[in-house]
Amino acid sequence: MAETQEATVKFGVLNETSSDESRVALTPDIVTRLRKAGITCLIESGAGIAAHYTDDDYAKAGAQVLSADEVVAKADALGFVDRPSASLVATIKPGTWVIGMLGSFTDADYVAALEKAGIVGIGIEKLPRQLSSAQSMDEMTSQNSVMGYKAALVAANAYGSFFPMMTTAAGTIRPAKVLILGAGIAGLQAIGTARRLGAVVTAYDVRPASRGEVESLGAKFLDLGLDFSAGQGEGGYARALTPEEQAAQQAAVDEKAAGFDVIITTAKVPGRKPPVLLTKAGVDGLKRGAVIVDCAASELGGNVEGSVVGTTVTDGGVTVIGAPYLASEVSNTASNLLARNVADVLAHFVRDGRLSIDLNEELDDALVVAGRPAAAAPAEA
Amino acid sequence: MAETQEATVKFGVLNETSSDESRVALTPDIVTRLRKAGITCLIESGAGIAAHYTDDDYAKAGAQVLSADEVVAKADALGFVDRPSASLVATIKPGTWVIGMLGSFTDADYVAALEKAGIVGIGIEKLPRQLSSAQSMDEMTSQNSVMGYKAALVAANAYGSFFPMMTTAAGTIRPAKVLILGAGIAGLQAIGTARRLGAVVTAYDVRPASRGEVESLGAKFLDLGLDFSAGQGEGGYARALTPEEQAAQQAAVDEKAAGFDVIITTAKVPGRKPPVLLTKAGVDGLKRGAVIVDCAASELGGNVEGSVVGTTVTDGGVTVIGAPYLASEVSNTASNLLARNVADVLAHFVRDGRLSIDLNEELDDALVVAGRPAAAAPAEA
Repeated sequence: MAETQEATVKFGVLNETSSDESRVALTPDIVTRLRKAGITCLIESGAGIAAHYTDDDYAKAGAQVLSADEVVAKADALGFVDRPSASLVATIKPGTWVIGMLGSFTDADYVAALEKAGIVGIGIEKLPRQLSSAQSMDEMTSQNSVMGYKAALVAANAYGSFFPMMTTAAGTIRPAKVLILGAGIAGLQAIGTARRLGAVVTAYDVRPASRGEVESLGAKFLDLGLDFSAGQGEGGYARALTPEEQAAQQAAVDEKAAGFDVIITTAKVPGRKPPVLLTKAGVDGLKRGAVIVDCAASELGGNVEGSVVGTTVTDGGVTVIGAPYLASEVSNTASNLLARNVADVLAHFVRDGRLSIDLNEELDDALVVAGRPAAAAPAEA
Repeated sequence: MAETQEATVKFGVLNETSSDESRVALTPDIVTRLRKAGITCLIESGAGIAAHYTDDDYAKAGAQVLSADEVVAKADALGFVDRPSASLVATIKPGTWVIGMLGSFTDADYVAALEKAGIVGIGIEKLPRQLSSAQSMDEMTSQNSVMGYKAALVAANAYGSFFPMMTTAAGTIRPAKVLILGAGIAGLQAIGTARRLGAVVTAYDVRPASRGEVESLGAKFLDLGLDFSAGQGEGGYARALTPEEQAAQQAAVDEKAAGFDVIITTAKVPGRKPPVLLTKAGVDGLKRGAVIVDCAASELGGNVEGSVVGTTVTDGGVTVIGAPYLASEVSNTASNLLARNVADVLAHFVRDGRLSIDLNEELDDALVVAGRPAAAAPAEA
């Protein structure tokens, strides 16, 4: 028995260290699921509490609840919501796998540090999303979906009027006019949620294909009278626009925005400065009482010029909510989906009860960003 | 011209003094409406700003924007969201009409003070709601409707999972199970909003008639296996239950509540201690991550034992939100409806360009709580 246990892959998850992070990369349901796949789960005590899972919930599902040091010392693979900090990386033993969004597209230094530490880095940001076998691993889709839902709720909650139309004895309340800028996964979910609440929804995206997606959800597509054909970038994300295109788009959006009560912007470009979709002039043109939720707000700026993380009110009475942590705020649902994504990535690499890499497989070739075995020869970690 | 203006009824509205109050008893649309009825509007500078109306908006609609002292000195009638404090009453000149929710059912001392000050008190709490002519004056209905909408939004926003069911590549999310306790105007609006968001909704009310109302909105009626026949009190409000009935109801609700993710309680009894619908045992029986929104929370207690105004989290991970100010938080819509209610009450009493009372009219007889003319003889103020 002891020997069999030794041969099992040990998957460890720690309490996320950022104070803005309520998600956890492992949930009790997934512990059960991974056990069936022959994987032993180790979890840091308290890691799930912000997502409403107790140590006891994990223990009942069959996980070992340990200190952070013990998890790091024992785990063959570690799963993360946010990639481990440099100081945490320094404590991870060589040969350990690190699975999560590692930011490899934009941060070569980080990847080099993993490499130097002898860590195998599995970067979910590199997932070939078009593969059907990758869909249950698609953390970007699952988390953006949660973000879009929450963005609409936050907007409705901050708005001083009703989203739905309502006819009462004291008069008729017209429905809110909501504009969604960026109609990817998050934008589409925001459209759906705002429409559920009864708002009249319009949306815009640079990708020409998005018009059909927006209209299929019952929203209007905002016609700017501009053409950014071939607006779709690699992997289904929006490509970056040229400076001239951006300026033309901004001016047109600023002008159209004035007619809306609520604006939700969702155009994150992973690891890069988000495109400005609404300038200060656009914000100043909005009605008193209008609400903006900028999901791309960050230290690098957001989709809305001048937006900062948190809530501000302009002199013109427009509430601007910079909200990069929306998925984390729906901590339970977001964790359930994310844990499944991470677990399915992990399980993909478990072959014959061991972690291994086969670079002839498209998923392996795409996801391994550090500790790649030499050339195309199949290798084992 | 000057003489004609002198003869006009002057209606004044002040900035509400409570820091929890964002509503205003007059909106620019209503200024226009009242002008057409020959009523001049006076508004304190800044009174509308929390409801997103500027002084300029009022001035453009034809109101005079003045200091509070000027409004009080010039007005024939004053309209309020929350009744004026004793110190404000002391500054109001005899003969002035005060229109609003005056709390006359429960606070005889307050009414006596108005009477002593020579003020005509029009208590909207006494509105005979069953009269069709009273419907556009029904502030209780309009504000409870806003409260119910907001309660569902606040609950959804505080809940760490989705309200709607969602099927994704990373698994299916089950819809939230929402229980609404108290299915009056607020409860019905909360049912509608939670259902819009995709939750599975169950509701309960002591009034037997409420079953049909709940079911007509597509929600389930919670069957406690108890019979409180004749549960309907005067004026369409729930009657107070006997202590034995309350205990039986509480025990049954506590037991059933454990199966729900979100509970919204709306059983306010104006001016009185709210009935406890969920005891501490019921709260402790809820799942970690459950959310309660108690609209009746107050200094007198709420519908949920131990609830206080604001947000607390129990040791068992249940978030309890005591939220008595929800209508005020939807400040624009709530003000639009409330201003119409108050204005229609005012306009009812304007006869031949003057404020007057006719106690032979049912509305007059019901609404005048202070400064009543002697006996049944028609009188003028």
